[in-house]
Amino acid sequence: MSLLVIGTLAYDTIETAHERREEILGGSAVYFALASSCFTPTALVGVVGRDFRAEHIAALEGAGVDLEGLEIADGETFRWSGRYEADWNTRHTLDTQLNVLEHFDPKVPERHASARFVFLANSSPQVQARGLDQVLDPEFVMLDTMNLWIDVAREELVQLLGRVDAVVLNDEEARMLTGEDNLWRAAQGVRELGPGVVVLKKGEHGAFLLAEDWRFSVPGFPVESVVDPTGAGDSFAGGFMGYVAATGDCEHPTLRQAMLYGTAAASCCVEGFSTEQIEGRSMEEIQRRYEELLRMITP
Amino acid sequence: MSLLVIGTLAYDTIETAHERREEILGGSAVYFALASSCFTPTALVGVVGRDFRAEHIAALEGAGVDLEGLEIADGETFRWSGRYEADWNTRHTLDTQLNVLEHFDPKVPERHASARFVFLANSSPQVQARGLDQVLDPEFVMLDTMNLWIDVAREELVQLLGRVDAVVLNDEEARMLTGEDNLWRAAQGVRELGPGVVVLKKGEHGAFLLAEDWRFSVPGFPVESVVDPTGAGDSFAGGFMGYVAATGDCEHPTLRQAMLYGTAAASCCVEGFSTEQIEGRSMEEIQRRYEELLRMITP
Repeated sequence: MSLLVIGTLAYDTIETAHERREEILGGSAVYFALASSCFTPTALVGVVGRDFRAEHIAALEGAGVDLEGLEIADGETFRWSGRYEADWNTRHTLDTQLNVLEHFDPKVPERHASARFVFLANSSPQVQARGLDQVLDPEFVMLDTMNLWIDVAREELVQLLGRVDAVVLNDEEARMLTGEDNLWRAAQGVRELGPGVVVLKKGEHGAFLLAEDWRFSVPGFPVESVVDPTGAGDSFAGGFMGYVAATGDCEHPTLRQAMLYGTAAASCCVEGFSTEQIEGRSMEEIQRRYEELLRMITP
Repeated sequence: MSLLVIGTLAYDTIETAHERREEILGGSAVYFALASSCFTPTALVGVVGRDFRAEHIAALEGAGVDLEGLEIADGETFRWSGRYEADWNTRHTLDTQLNVLEHFDPKVPERHASARFVFLANSSPQVQARGLDQVLDPEFVMLDTMNLWIDVAREELVQLLGRVDAVVLNDEEARMLTGEDNLWRAAQGVRELGPGVVVLKKGEHGAFLLAEDWRFSVPGFPVESVVDPTGAGDSFAGGFMGYVAATGDCEHPTLRQAMLYGTAAASCCVEGFSTEQIEGRSMEEIQRRYEELLRMITP
């Protein structure tokens, strides 16, 4: 198994302008692994509490996610609660209960320590670094983060950026991290912190990749009915890294294709609450959207 | 001469977070014609007052713009004054003085009445309709508009949309016109009002074209230093229609290429105040940016 993700599993309570759902499956590693496992078997390292439901273990295993690295700790699973404005562009965190995440120390199972492709899903930079320490000689490590860590753990985050090959973050986070308002200069500023590849997620406007001497832009997939954008970024990363790991290299053409597959995976995710639309979607649907995206960018 | 533009000429006063410029050359037809004339000779129909400066007549003529249809009326040239927020996304109109525009009745010179390609640049739908009435048998007519006309002349605008082949508007205007928050549904809603081709401009996020059975997306050109976004949309349309008219057809591949050329032209425009960067740029620079855009979207 060549793809490893280290991140969170959660129960989320989500309010949109139309609906409210309580205690639904979420977490960065969950969304990532459900998307990436459409492409390649994926090993997950994370922690849940005793309250984590058997049906959710079964859903992950059923999708081909290896859970040897999943710790079941005394206490409750991480909870997050948030509300989206009607235009989807603003998200308010209503409540966060770290629970078992508070003392989480990731343990990478021995047989996954040789993973070639690693995704450090959104989690504290300290947890991400401790996870990365246990991977022997990864070929391509990608990191995700969020505004919270830029605020409260900037130093640890910047240090970690020097150890990874790629980072994926949204436009607002790139601006926050660099102090640059201009999107292109912000991307360049993030690259100067270490990672050779910077991927900026721009929601409905797609994503942008900046590397040393090339860049690539992909439009958003036209989703006509957004239900819940939670997990879109993690699903994007899952499609991206899943394709890279399945292909087995990280050459330019692979990374370009990965941008399209990530976009296709994210577009499935936002069409349902929780993981219902990313779980339910086969590789066939992702492939269909990939081909539609290709048509949309072919002059 | 196969490309005709009907629109405004203005003196603008612009405030940005960094600078203020008074009484600089502007107007929808001006920006359009300076961009389109990089591709093909362009005839302009519009009105100015006696105060319009000879140097600006010379600049337009020097760029190859035919001014036979330019009326010089008693009174003052149209004035517009606006201020941009630091993030460029919000523009406040500070003052508008219609002056000679108030009683403008466009007159298309006889030898331009046979124009095959027509751009109805932003102006009141009444003026746009009266201009279009005088074109005998155009092959491809594209319309631009703005939030003001959606507010105060919706009926006339909707009627006009039934008479054109294409419309170009920004995402906010498409939402306003259709009442649809979702960008893709908004584009679809605009198409249902008549035009076979809808082009949505999304600023730094590029542009999107929706036709009956195909769609095309182009990213924004990475401009690292925006000076003044005024005229970006008109320059986009100028690059788009200039390329279409120069090619001489409006087949799908032509429209796709036109999206790239429009984006390239708009990116030049925003790098300077007024028309200084679109006037100063040769076709060579637009071609260079077109090729960079091609590289950015080639998987």
